Amino acid sequence: MKKYDKLVKNAAGRIVPEIINGNQSIPYKGIGKHIPSGRKHAPNIVSSINYPADGNKTVASIRKALERSGIKNGMTISTHHHLRNGDLVAEEVFKAAKELGIKDLVWFPSASFPCHAPILEYLEDGTINRIEGSMNGPLGKFTSEGNMKGMAVLRSHGGRYQSVQDGEVHIDIAVIAAPTSDPFGNANAVHGPSACGILGYALADYQYADKVVVVTDNLIDFPCIPMQIEGNYVDFVIEVEKIGIPEKIVSGTTKVTKSPDRLLIADLTARFCEEAGILGDKCCFQFGAGGTSLAIGLYFHEILKKNAWKARFAFGGSTQYMVKMLEEGTLEYILDAQAFDLEAVRSVRENHNHQDVSIFHAYNYHSKGNYTTMMDVVILGATEVDLNFNGNVVTHSDGYLLHGIGGWQNCLFSKCTILPIPLFRDRIPVIKDQVTTLCGPGELIDVIVTERGIAINPLRQDLIERVKNSGLPLKTIAELKDEAEKICGKPEKPELDDELVAAIKWVDGTVIDSVKKVKS
Amino acid sequence: MKKYDKLVKNAAGRIVPEIINGNQSIPYKGIGKHIPSGRKHAPNIVSSINYPADGNKTVASIRKALERSGIKNGMTISTHHHLRNGDLVAEEVFKAAKELGIKDLVWFPSASFPCHAPILEYLEDGTINRIEGSMNGPLGKFTSEGNMKGMAVLRSHGGRYQSVQDGEVHIDIAVIAAPTSDPFGNANAVHGPSACGILGYALADYQYADKVVVVTDNLIDFPCIPMQIEGNYVDFVIEVEKIGIPEKIVSGTTKVTKSPDRLLIADLTARFCEEAGILGDKCCFQFGAGGTSLAIGLYFHEILKKNAWKARFAFGGSTQYMVKMLEEGTLEYILDAQAFDLEAVRSVRENHNHQDVSIFHAYNYHSKGNYTTMMDVVILGATEVDLNFNGNVVTHSDGYLLHGIGGWQNCLFSKCTILPIPLFRDRIPVIKDQVTTLCGPGELIDVIVTERGIAINPLRQDLIERVKNSGLPLKTIAELKDEAEKICGKPEKPELDDELVAAIKWVDGTVIDSVKKVKS
Repeated sequence: MKKYDKLVKNAAGRIVPEIINGNQSIPYKGIGKHIPSGRKHAPNIVSSINYPADGNKTVASIRKALERSGIKNGMTISTHHHLRNGDLVAEEVFKAAKELGIKDLVWFPSASFPCHAPILEYLEDGTINRIEGSMNGPLGKFTSEGNMKGMAVLRSHGGRYQSVQDGEVHIDIAVIAAPTSDPFGNANAVHGPSACGILGYALADYQYADKVVVVTDNLIDFPCIPMQIEGNYVDFVIEVEKIGIPEKIVSGTTKVTKSPDRLLIADLTARFCEEAGILGDKCCFQFGAGGTSLAIGLYFHEILKKNAWKARFAFGGSTQYMVKMLEEGTLEYILDAQAFDLEAVRSVRENHNHQDVSIFHAYNYHSKGNYTTMMDVVILGATEVDLNFNGNVVTHSDGYLLHGIGGWQNCLFSKCTILPIPLFRDRIPVIKDQVTTLCGPGELIDVIVTERGIAINPLRQDLIERVKNSGLPLKTIAELKDEAEKICGKPEKPELDDELVAAIKWVDGTVIDSVKKVKS
Repeated sequence: MKKYDKLVKNAAGRIVPEIINGNQSIPYKGIGKHIPSGRKHAPNIVSSINYPADGNKTVASIRKALERSGIKNGMTISTHHHLRNGDLVAEEVFKAAKELGIKDLVWFPSASFPCHAPILEYLEDGTINRIEGSMNGPLGKFTSEGNMKGMAVLRSHGGRYQSVQDGEVHIDIAVIAAPTSDPFGNANAVHGPSACGILGYALADYQYADKVVVVTDNLIDFPCIPMQIEGNYVDFVIEVEKIGIPEKIVSGTTKVTKSPDRLLIADLTARFCEEAGILGDKCCFQFGAGGTSLAIGLYFHEILKKNAWKARFAFGGSTQYMVKMLEEGTLEYILDAQAFDLEAVRSVRENHNHQDVSIFHAYNYHSKGNYTTMMDVVILGATEVDLNFNGNVVTHSDGYLLHGIGGWQNCLFSKCTILPIPLFRDRIPVIKDQVTTLCGPGELIDVIVTERGIAINPLRQDLIERVKNSGLPLKTIAELKDEAEKICGKPEKPELDDELVAAIKWVDGTVIDSVKKVKS
């Protein structure tokens, strides 16, 4: 099978394949232009008489569960990333698959981490054909250098749910690492030695997969409460000694940046939000867990407090800083798809107003509404932006795939999308003529905040109007780009081959861009 | 369209139609004999761009929501019964449908109550073709006398979920009365003036219906927490003055029987469970909210307390008595699909160990396991039982349909199913040669407890063995029947017509019996 075929130029002017790994794909048509038809994926009807009457679905090992799930060459196996860089389960799955002599699997993680480097072995020996998910660190290098047998496919978190729901990706076996489970398969992440708070990324997996396998290191009597995973969807439960390395799952502390430049960017971002009237009573927002984002969160907290405003909700990933806002009364609810530190895990376990939700709820573009469109402001990162405000979040300027899309594409639909980014990284300017890889169309990116000024997308005259007398350092994006190039020089283009190694999906399942092989 | 066609004798020896309301049906094949094939119902894929970006899905009225949902003749409209005898919403739906000139609707409630008597008007004038759900009081009389245009179909709670999941019943429009909702359609039943605790019966409805309409009398800002109904499935939200009459939704107090005979039955039942070793540490059980059941619950509480045992879980409907067990430490968890009184509503709102679950989790026969098979004992009622321990729960001895099946069929799969019933009601013996309507096969009914003795199903020699020296008044079912007939005389057979008015589904979607028209 060819990795890809039938290259066409999509509505964003990017060259993408119409056939990816033998499957028909739809080239990106523009924002809101692709209206899906058809029906959601329909799993097989099963009967409870084929499941143990005593509710005990435990089997001895992952290998046994894969066998009993009918594992075959070419199947798709999914995992979630809630154990982040402490995950011990994904590797075990492919180790067992290899022992069974299985080839050409598709690994469909909700994200991958440096801890997944050992999976390279299974990519190299043909156990795994390709990853559809995120590729970073050594997996990104492997992919970028053209070593993956199949074509990688990157999707946003919401796009991952959408692709499973819509039947684009059929999960044969979902393997769900669960910090606590009962023998029936009800499971949660708020209790147990590997507690990671939330399991919401696994929702599509257990709703739509043919077989669902729960792997836990904390097996308790039925019923496991709360039931973040519902046992009625689960086929097998496996008890292992350890599913994760706690200190790598959640950080004891997430940390605010100490870099003066980053703190300046954070301060400018928060001031922009205040001056533009974005922050206010009942406002809602999302900011990430990176050092700059956390600083912005702290500044938001101060602004809200000063004005006696209470934000209505923040969408997670959650951190100790968001929890502080909740507990000190500047924030009413956290809607949380991922807990980043121990304070967040505690809060989601204890506080009714810290609610675990899933990607389905917040980000699935093919549902009856998304939370993101209701958000007053979201704070996102980017590896590159260009003069048209287009954003890249997956490749670095050298062309290497180094990040997943995460919720980035989904969040662009907020009322105001701000990218607080340094003007240059390692003396390479971040603002380009054109982004190496198009992940998000500039029409959806409203504001770029750098340490040397703020550029507002000319499409947002309303925002420009609102802050014109604020004293904030407003510049055009071209001015910012020139400034960076005056300091660092015009950056060189990455050396890329014509061969494609990865496809970038848009939130509606269409292909917005492809990633070229790096000349090594 | 003929109401039914092609009568055949099923595996239980009952005459049932193979065609019901124009649809092919499968006659009952025996317990665990029907293995389903095929795929679950697949709802249409939608796009979030067709929903309001601000998350505000409110429309002015139920009528407007029905219009915008594309209501047409012959569609199926579902409602839930969590507002019980205080429901004000179902009637309004059909009033609006009538105003729109719609005919031949199928009403698919999870149960109906005496408060739904006004819906007779819409059955009479052709707005509604038939009810697929439960029929009691005036609706039962109407059906039994052959006045319903279509053939009624009765399903267990679990069978209702199964029929929707498997695509047997396609819900065009689900109308969900919600005690609290936000404009996005996230909703719950733990807050608001019409709080009824839980909305789990509506799960199949919102997961699988084409259009989902939430009707609330307590509209709050997004996000409505907890999200017992997930707004991402919801199309329209309507605010009305009142969705229910609080005092008829939940009783302030559920009451234990004061009848000496019933108390004797309860005492015998509890003693049987103790002597048979069914009660013990970590045991699990279900008992209902009727007067006798509540007394059994109280006796269970005492037995557990006396022995310092803690039951692991009870499955609801929940009442103040179950909550007392939870709070006094004889019960660890309540898994609850329905709250029967105000204490239960409070508990489910406040107590993490009082967990709302849905019928899907407990009862859906076509899922990866059911809770019921794990239960050590369930306590159920019956209108009739027969010499083969077959049970009837829908018709009275005069042939009139007076009850829904509820969770009754689903619960029969417990490790020990006990029917505590009086030997006669209004001088009519309850034990018959043959039940008027077969709802549950005798193979699944283990023990009959009456005020004059206990009959154990001969299939359960293990139970007979365990209590043989207990001093409990053990009798055969034939002995109990003779005793009743000595007192009351042999009961007359109901006067029934050959015409069929209703079909009784088994938990797997097959047809276990049909109900004949009553000669009036």
